[in-house]
Amino acid sequence: MSREVPFDNDVPAPAQRDSAYRRKIYLRGTREDVHVPFVEVLPVGKGEPSGPGGADAGPIGLDGCEPVPLVRLYDTTGPGSDPARGLPPLRLRWIKERGDTAEHEGRSPGPLDEGRGAARTRRVRTGSAMSGHGADIAGAGPPEVGRAPRRSTPEARSVTQLHYARQGIITPEMDFVATRESVDAELVRQEVAAGRAIMPSNVNHPELEPMIIGRRFLVKVNANIGTSSVTSSAAGEVEKLSWALRWGADTVMDLSTGPGIHTTREWILRNSPAPVGTVPIYQALEKAGGRPEDLTWEIYRDTLIEQAEQGVDYFTVHAGVLLRYVPMTMNRVTGIVSRGGSIMAAWCLAHHEENFLYAHFDEMCEIMTAYDIAFSLGDGLRPGSVADANDEAQLAELATLGELAEVAWSKDVQVMIEGPGHVPMDKIAQNVELERELCHDAPFYTLGPLTTDVAPGYDHITSAIGAAMIAMHGTSMLCYVTPKEHLGLPDLQDVKEGMIAYKIAAHAADLAKQHPRAREWDDALSRARFEFRWEDQFNLSLDPSTARGFHDETLPAGPAKTAHFCSMCGPKFCSMQISQRVRDFAAEHGLSPTQSLQVGLSEKASEFRSSGAEIYTVQNVPADA
Amino acid sequence: MSREVPFDNDVPAPAQRDSAYRRKIYLRGTREDVHVPFVEVLPVGKGEPSGPGGADAGPIGLDGCEPVPLVRLYDTTGPGSDPARGLPPLRLRWIKERGDTAEHEGRSPGPLDEGRGAARTRRVRTGSAMSGHGADIAGAGPPEVGRAPRRSTPEARSVTQLHYARQGIITPEMDFVATRESVDAELVRQEVAAGRAIMPSNVNHPELEPMIIGRRFLVKVNANIGTSSVTSSAAGEVEKLSWALRWGADTVMDLSTGPGIHTTREWILRNSPAPVGTVPIYQALEKAGGRPEDLTWEIYRDTLIEQAEQGVDYFTVHAGVLLRYVPMTMNRVTGIVSRGGSIMAAWCLAHHEENFLYAHFDEMCEIMTAYDIAFSLGDGLRPGSVADANDEAQLAELATLGELAEVAWSKDVQVMIEGPGHVPMDKIAQNVELERELCHDAPFYTLGPLTTDVAPGYDHITSAIGAAMIAMHGTSMLCYVTPKEHLGLPDLQDVKEGMIAYKIAAHAADLAKQHPRAREWDDALSRARFEFRWEDQFNLSLDPSTARGFHDETLPAGPAKTAHFCSMCGPKFCSMQISQRVRDFAAEHGLSPTQSLQVGLSEKASEFRSSGAEIYTVQNVPADA
Repeated sequence: MSREVPFDNDVPAPAQRDSAYRRKIYLRGTREDVHVPFVEVLPVGKGEPSGPGGADAGPIGLDGCEPVPLVRLYDTTGPGSDPARGLPPLRLRWIKERGDTAEHEGRSPGPLDEGRGAARTRRVRTGSAMSGHGADIAGAGPPEVGRAPRRSTPEARSVTQLHYARQGIITPEMDFVATRESVDAELVRQEVAAGRAIMPSNVNHPELEPMIIGRRFLVKVNANIGTSSVTSSAAGEVEKLSWALRWGADTVMDLSTGPGIHTTREWILRNSPAPVGTVPIYQALEKAGGRPEDLTWEIYRDTLIEQAEQGVDYFTVHAGVLLRYVPMTMNRVTGIVSRGGSIMAAWCLAHHEENFLYAHFDEMCEIMTAYDIAFSLGDGLRPGSVADANDEAQLAELATLGELAEVAWSKDVQVMIEGPGHVPMDKIAQNVELERELCHDAPFYTLGPLTTDVAPGYDHITSAIGAAMIAMHGTSMLCYVTPKEHLGLPDLQDVKEGMIAYKIAAHAADLAKQHPRAREWDDALSRARFEFRWEDQFNLSLDPSTARGFHDETLPAGPAKTAHFCSMCGPKFCSMQISQRVRDFAAEHGLSPTQSLQVGLSEKASEFRSSGAEIYTVQNVPADA
Repeated sequence: MSREVPFDNDVPAPAQRDSAYRRKIYLRGTREDVHVPFVEVLPVGKGEPSGPGGADAGPIGLDGCEPVPLVRLYDTTGPGSDPARGLPPLRLRWIKERGDTAEHEGRSPGPLDEGRGAARTRRVRTGSAMSGHGADIAGAGPPEVGRAPRRSTPEARSVTQLHYARQGIITPEMDFVATRESVDAELVRQEVAAGRAIMPSNVNHPELEPMIIGRRFLVKVNANIGTSSVTSSAAGEVEKLSWALRWGADTVMDLSTGPGIHTTREWILRNSPAPVGTVPIYQALEKAGGRPEDLTWEIYRDTLIEQAEQGVDYFTVHAGVLLRYVPMTMNRVTGIVSRGGSIMAAWCLAHHEENFLYAHFDEMCEIMTAYDIAFSLGDGLRPGSVADANDEAQLAELATLGELAEVAWSKDVQVMIEGPGHVPMDKIAQNVELERELCHDAPFYTLGPLTTDVAPGYDHITSAIGAAMIAMHGTSMLCYVTPKEHLGLPDLQDVKEGMIAYKIAAHAADLAKQHPRAREWDDALSRARFEFRWEDQFNLSLDPSTARGFHDETLPAGPAKTAHFCSMCGPKFCSMQISQRVRDFAAEHGLSPTQSLQVGLSEKASEFRSSGAEIYTVQNVPADA
């Protein structure tokens, strides 16, 4: 029933196809043209599927039992489209309506934009190097959208969601987010205005379905994708994008360093309903011939404009790697492990000048406020091993990021702060406390952290532990880590494994933070489990096909899906059944939790004995059971 | 190089074969005949393997670099043997030496011991139902050891490690544990004497390599194995045992409910160097025809003796499910999910009498103290969903377990306390705090807990998060959860996935608790990573073959193992390399972390520029890089 093929143009997004009882719906915001996606899970009940009940009718009765509520889950899969055409520009009307931006000629892309080796770039463009998965977009360039780049008009000082929020305006984007998060739009506006939440939303990324990153909202997950010089293709990265979204990615970062950087990014942006982040220094370094010492503010600035016009929603900027902090990394076990951090450290030492990203920070803000690109202030000195966690270098940089956040806010630019990395569990809470204090409650966005260094191949697990904990303490977005971390570039299976581990971490944190809607999902699944509604349990699962497949391995027969037992205990010996009998008995005899069984009940005991002498026996049992 | 075949009789245990640089060694305790196993990882360095250096020589110099220390890891794989012969009885001399136990005729096993369906029992005994994996033990009964069951002599009141510890005796078992944990034997004795740690070690399980469960020691992991009525065979369970040990299981629980219970357990015990735990009520229920209401103390007592004589090291006993607590589960989302708990609840209601395990607890202690079997006081009312966590039923039972722990201690019986289950992260710390308070610091042994209910198929991850956290707060042993939890019985791959996730959780907790030796492992691996000693990084990994395999997927060439880059960034752009250049430069110029770069260093900058103009280039690069 379910499929895991990354994408397929003839049919709706995979989330819609899992089951007739798990389907995509849209709810309207306050505005007519705000349509917010959800996945709705309808109860199948104990029998075989026979068509969904009334979707909007609320609780649905099953076999005369207590009504089972439907559950609506946050959906990130996007509207679905032909990747070669790109997604519909749903925000375009809202952006135009505001009248504070205009199209202009923009910067002229050149061959250098694709990175070193323009020859290779052609190969990506024409698709001859593409993998089998990407056949549908091979042979063509990225989607042509027929739009010139847009930026703020000369009159408009800023076109950011922060700017509007501070003016008391609830934008359609905020309306969308409020519906998506099931909160009041005014809460969204207030949190954005205060800098405690951000909504990355470049005016050149109208395909975006707005989302919010902030402590008061659901914890979000970012998926990193991108080519390197050793491996990957543009088509492969678009596949990874759709695949990551299918498993719940809230934003994606394109970390490409390989050939075809500009084109790969164009493909990704035109097909991403989620905000796209980048680390512009990677492309700038390519333009500088790969030599950190040859980087200049002019090259970097040109790269910012290039990416701003394409529609990148947030930039990781390593402006906190100051010259005087570099020697603090000398005695570390793993030195500087951030690519951006090491590039800037090398630049600082080579020139004996202050980091040019720090020196030109004001100018950078002026650019970003004109497109509404958010800062993700990079932690270039983050620890790369548990030994280096919470050290002087890391914390010195964090204080500088706090200083820069205030500069960004003064220009109406949205800001979040990046965090580690590798941190043992006992030092996780301190990371959040210091970030909140030093960075004035700007949203925190952490990579993991990994809680031990000893399990390469399983760093989605070492870091899901840290991610869940740091999110519980207040981190707003988690950058996923795949099983390939430290070992290689993730393939589609790795992307899925990383996403699942991080959706678990994020949801576990939502529960721990007692998010008002988080428990609904768990309770619905647990009730289905207790009542042996197997199909409902599968449909409510984070990964329905895996849950169904695991069940089928030991009990593949169709009737086992409706059986009142599972393969762990077998049909003769089931705690859930015994427990149900206990419950039924107690209920029938009007027992309440506060009422003692000690008084006047011994005669009931024999009644229980006789009624329960035969444990419920299921007919459809495998022959050898 | 590495193999994942579960077992193979002609060669040593798999851990020894991973590499010439990862090998099993034994360290001597205080006594001559105490030999404690470790896995020693010797540095390969940056070149190809050419034979190990001097193992006992301490740090080993590589290519003129700083010496790299060897690392010794805790080893659970056991001495290795032919499963049909069983393991050598290494403790037998120690047990006999004490002169407080004697062999006796013991109980006569009968056909009912195998569970219902004696015909099926024969099938298991003769091996005709065994899987292909177990061909070596097919056709034969379990190992014949030629020993009669042993118990305390009439003169000896108790033969438990707790009894000896209270008398100030350091047993060979304590000596073994002290060497294994790298601590003083007196600390071991004190913690056991105080009831804060246990060393499950039945006198009828001389094959045991002693281990300890307590907050001051390394966090341990239990693996559940066992047949059910729907699936599994004795041979398959012995395979799972060895496989679980290979991945680091510290104890195993045989939860068999299927046919051949007695014989399956005999196979497991004779082949387990780790303590074996059981839930005797499962077998007792079989003897009672599967009807909870027909259970009696006499049937249960007979089962305890049977298992005691076989050598089971700890019993899960659900003596805290009191009659008056049962109605407290009525309004739960998932009622009673513990099998033992639901059986006892059904029995209590059927008879309207107090739980017979509670009523006969003193007598049970007299049996267990005569063999040195530890209590694992079961949490029959543990929550089965996050909705039910830390509720009245759970906590009422916990208080009763604390009361029972004191009774056990009064009879010199070792005790640990079982804990949940399903608990959202914000309620995890409270579980440990209450256990310590109500159960007087008896070691806590928890199942997970799962931190969310929504990810069936991935409950090794939902629960590794909770397990790591609860262990950080003071849980001494974690019961693993496999990906098949709630869906089916684990196969070998599931056992491995569960074990790896839990070894990560346990080690992350050891780090967070600042266990004196925990960091050595992480630091050794991180240094290897930073210095591009790929082979050392693999050998130090929790799962070397997976780490090596993932690396090889993108860079399979032999030379890539010695390359100073990886596939994530490629050879032209590597943060580790840039970072090393920064470090080398700073070191050469006598910079220290406290010294500002601002003064008198600008002339050095040009030097750095010229030295670093060419980033280190590796020759052995894949052709298309």
